[in-house]
Amino acid sequence: MEGSPSTAGPRPLGLSYAVGASQLLGVAVLAVVGAWMGHFRGGLAWESPQLQFNVHPLCMILGMVFLQGDALLVYRVFRTESKRATKVLHGLLHGLALLVALVGLVAVFQYHKKNGFPDLYSLHSWCGILAVAFYVLQWLMGLGAFLFPGAPFSLRSRYKPQHAFFGATLFLLSIATALLGILELLIFKTYSAFAPEGLLGNALGLLLVGFGGLLGYILTREEWRRPLQGEEMALSMDFKKLPEEEEGGGGSPVDPR
Amino acid sequence: MEGSPSTAGPRPLGLSYAVGASQLLGVAVLAVVGAWMGHFRGGLAWESPQLQFNVHPLCMILGMVFLQGDALLVYRVFRTESKRATKVLHGLLHGLALLVALVGLVAVFQYHKKNGFPDLYSLHSWCGILAVAFYVLQWLMGLGAFLFPGAPFSLRSRYKPQHAFFGATLFLLSIATALLGILELLIFKTYSAFAPEGLLGNALGLLLVGFGGLLGYILTREEWRRPLQGEEMALSMDFKKLPEEEEGGGGSPVDPR
Repeated sequence: MEGSPSTAGPRPLGLSYAVGASQLLGVAVLAVVGAWMGHFRGGLAWESPQLQFNVHPLCMILGMVFLQGDALLVYRVFRTESKRATKVLHGLLHGLALLVALVGLVAVFQYHKKNGFPDLYSLHSWCGILAVAFYVLQWLMGLGAFLFPGAPFSLRSRYKPQHAFFGATLFLLSIATALLGILELLIFKTYSAFAPEGLLGNALGLLLVGFGGLLGYILTREEWRRPLQGEEMALSMDFKKLPEEEEGGGGSPVDPR
Repeated sequence: MEGSPSTAGPRPLGLSYAVGASQLLGVAVLAVVGAWMGHFRGGLAWESPQLQFNVHPLCMILGMVFLQGDALLVYRVFRTESKRATKVLHGLLHGLALLVALVGLVAVFQYHKKNGFPDLYSLHSWCGILAVAFYVLQWLMGLGAFLFPGAPFSLRSRYKPQHAFFGATLFLLSIATALLGILELLIFKTYSAFAPEGLLGNALGLLLVGFGGLLGYILTREEWRRPLQGEEMALSMDFKKLPEEEEGGGGSPVDPR
């Protein structure tokens, strides 16, 4: 990389292993939540007043954790494809995540209504509404700034670090919300000893923490960032933060050395 | 900063406001948890079989959230003081946080024992044990690598980004654990409607999310990093990551431009 920032080197080996491990963890998370709903909670049935609830954990973890997480990884996995195609995939994965999450939200609100339970009183629900609402906002702002033509480059370059920071924050908030949901579900049933369901739920929580931690590590390692491609080099002086704006050039992949 | 990386510029105004806001949020968090334990839970009394529990939330949030968070801010607040004094303060604040947290842990284990409650079965307790155990480990490794003399600079420079990443992860895990503790405490009492105590607990959770988010923002803004001081410049070629190790020089405050 050094000395020829316009051409991408091979993908670092550590990055490949870390991304692979994150996908194994993500699939383990989905398998555990599926086993929980299937084995301990009677499975999924949209029309059933009781079993409709079980759609909620499955959809929220698939959408707000797994798909949201993988959307964040797109820029680490696709290092040499065109920037525009990579951005479109990033936006599509987030859009799919939102759709899946909306199904999960409808499931829980309909379940509450059918059973006369009150909505939105728990810390889990407050954090969840916050996460979903800002996720929609972030997605719309990302579309407007980065995918629709017309946004000036200076705005893109100023908004980009904010977009990345709030994206990471929303991902972490989604994981925290999932942990709260697991604990709530366990306590509402029985949770006063080392019951198998309690252990399963706890294990799911730890897997989620591991998934979040590993993604955080992949996304914050400077040398694993996506290198600029040839087509982007011409724009880089504009896209890149101005030196006065960011001391030392920061994490920008273009280094004038 | 640009052009003279050896002298520190004035503290950015945005940083001062953000640090001030974080301290207001942190004090609000402590006030809310104090009001919760004092007003709704009967106050603190170490010898009482019931009230000893109330020491736990107060100590854990003071130690593992407020003091741990402020220890992370030290390098943003003290920009021109000697590196060694700043490091010592960072280590002392983390040590104080650990001591306060240990008092909180003794309180909850003694409370369980006095009342015959089982230990360590909930997701809150699993996350909490994980956070405290790795916090002790991180503190010892930090002491060994950065404060005791004798650690080679090459080891320090390789370990430093790992130390910072795991430190941030432990802080976020501590906040997630606090959210789980709040939810657990609320559900174990009554939490099926919009009771004042439920609203207070939820508000505390949101304040914690805000504290964590704001600290994350302060700590990840490149241009708010502590500039290298004169005394450190001589070491900087050694301390700084090698270009082959970190593409583009990354977030290092020394830029050869």
